[in-house]
Amino acid sequence: MKDPFAPNEIKIAVIGGGTGSFTMLSALKHYTSQIAAIVSMADDGGSTGVLRDELGTLPPGDVRQCLVALSDSPKVRDLFEYRFDAGTFSGHSFGNILLTALEKMSGDFGQAVETASEILRIRGVVIPATLDNVRLKMEWEDKSLLLQGERVIDAEFFKQDPRKARLSLTPDATASSMAIAAIEQADIVVVAPGDLYTSLGPLLVIDGIGEALQRSKALKVYVSNLVSKQGQTDGFTVSDHAREIERFAGTPFLDVVLYNQAQPSAEVAALYKAEGGYVTEVDGDILAQQHYRAIGGDFLGKMATASGADTLIGKRSLIRHDAEAVAKHIIRMYRDE
Amino acid sequence: MKDPFAPNEIKIAVIGGGTGSFTMLSALKHYTSQIAAIVSMADDGGSTGVLRDELGTLPPGDVRQCLVALSDSPKVRDLFEYRFDAGTFSGHSFGNILLTALEKMSGDFGQAVETASEILRIRGVVIPATLDNVRLKMEWEDKSLLLQGERVIDAEFFKQDPRKARLSLTPDATASSMAIAAIEQADIVVVAPGDLYTSLGPLLVIDGIGEALQRSKALKVYVSNLVSKQGQTDGFTVSDHAREIERFAGTPFLDVVLYNQAQPSAEVAALYKAEGGYVTEVDGDILAQQHYRAIGGDFLGKMATASGADTLIGKRSLIRHDAEAVAKHIIRMYRDE
Repeated sequence: MKDPFAPNEIKIAVIGGGTGSFTMLSALKHYTSQIAAIVSMADDGGSTGVLRDELGTLPPGDVRQCLVALSDSPKVRDLFEYRFDAGTFSGHSFGNILLTALEKMSGDFGQAVETASEILRIRGVVIPATLDNVRLKMEWEDKSLLLQGERVIDAEFFKQDPRKARLSLTPDATASSMAIAAIEQADIVVVAPGDLYTSLGPLLVIDGIGEALQRSKALKVYVSNLVSKQGQTDGFTVSDHAREIERFAGTPFLDVVLYNQAQPSAEVAALYKAEGGYVTEVDGDILAQQHYRAIGGDFLGKMATASGADTLIGKRSLIRHDAEAVAKHIIRMYRDE
Repeated sequence: MKDPFAPNEIKIAVIGGGTGSFTMLSALKHYTSQIAAIVSMADDGGSTGVLRDELGTLPPGDVRQCLVALSDSPKVRDLFEYRFDAGTFSGHSFGNILLTALEKMSGDFGQAVETASEILRIRGVVIPATLDNVRLKMEWEDKSLLLQGERVIDAEFFKQDPRKARLSLTPDATASSMAIAAIEQADIVVVAPGDLYTSLGPLLVIDGIGEALQRSKALKVYVSNLVSKQGQTDGFTVSDHAREIERFAGTPFLDVVLYNQAQPSAEVAALYKAEGGYVTEVDGDILAQQHYRAIGGDFLGKMATASGADTLIGKRSLIRHDAEAVAKHIIRMYRDE
């Protein structure tokens, strides 16, 4: 096995999948070339789902996004994110097709990610959290409800409290050895913001991930979600998010929880409210009593504080982290210790 | 416009498309890095045809094969030639998908080929003969027959003598400026073996190609086809092939015609005969009276002379040029001049 990191630089492992990982990786890569993206592998929707169903391959979507975040070649980045809009390939992104072809050729998704990394000439490494072909499952204690599949769960409005549900993978998944090594050798582990039950959860419940987080001497930071997800985390506070993260991992591993304390503009907040999303409440009193340090900062991206934002297209993307500010804060914290 | 060649090495331009170009490029690239593949652009069958029909793009298939021939990275070569065998993408080769995505992104097939060349890290350049979106047309003098489309013409058993037919592109195509420059600046121009009416012809009839061949001071060599194509070139001799080549180009441009004089094994010849294919007849008396030099050699690949070949799979590929021997002969000829 190759080492996930080379010596003499800060070693950072970012845990997650999707947009949250993308933004954190894009910002943190400027501080080190020793960066490892550990990626959630339960996606089964959209282009990824079609490829999995038809070809029996592992989900390429989140891996693709992390590869693109770590690539320094704008041309190849654009190519990886290019999505066909007509014909047989309609809806498929080129990067997904590439990863699937490479896996079919080598019979090994880890090998496929390595080859794609060479083609993209990325900084750091992208590591699938597991190489097992698994599906996500969510069931409540009294067995009254059972949800199966990431796409299904993602679209669900939970009828019972999700904090009482058991999230698992079927069949049981084992963490990849590279994922374990990256967590153990890292100086900083960042849990990126992301959907609790369909992105971060499916990664943290993998056998071996929690144990590695427990053993790791890294500074372990969770960058808390900015807004709630309607029908799933309505009313969740910052400490609620952190509690679920540690429940999935099965261990109170966090050293620091970073939360945003800047307010979005009234226009942006109203747009979210209309869709049932709310800015995550900071429950300072409870946060003050936890085993981790809870640290607030102005971590909101420019778009979210702009006024007149209701004229902008793509509402969902307005409330985003100012990833540069978060990254700067994390690095400063690590150096000051 | 960039120069197709850099100084201080033999400059070779190879004209063709498909397997013949692939084998000649694979052998000639060992003698120079200044090699340009000028590629036929009339293909509309198979994966290429589906992509053209659905997305309105230019044909990637022959370009892909030439890119692969000039690539030095076995891993990326395998990827480009990988063909999906199940699901929505079944039958499509990865290289075709890549070239199509790049063309859709940039709106420019020439640009797409350049980017693909960077990814494949190829030796030399691959140049589409034209960047016009054209279809092949074949019509007889008395207008009694009209055939349209490369795929249709390729599958046709001609009912009249093809030497009396006019081969053209519709709408009229203009040669790309890079193709013209490569022919004019080359030290050697090689017309690779290939199907007369669906590969070499569609390239040589492009406006500007014949004129460039006429002007070029290069040593101009045609490597004659080894076997006839059933229903199309039955009974064609070496001089018949060369005559058609020059008829397409509209000019007696050839300096040398290289033909094979080795005999395939009885088993291999019998296999071909069963499919209606015959070893091209060497008409020495007529060849001796032409404006070009006709030179014979032992240019048959090992498989074609092996006995017991009837136990082998993939009969069609048994009679192939010994491209190394042909390339060596061409280079020696050029140096001796």
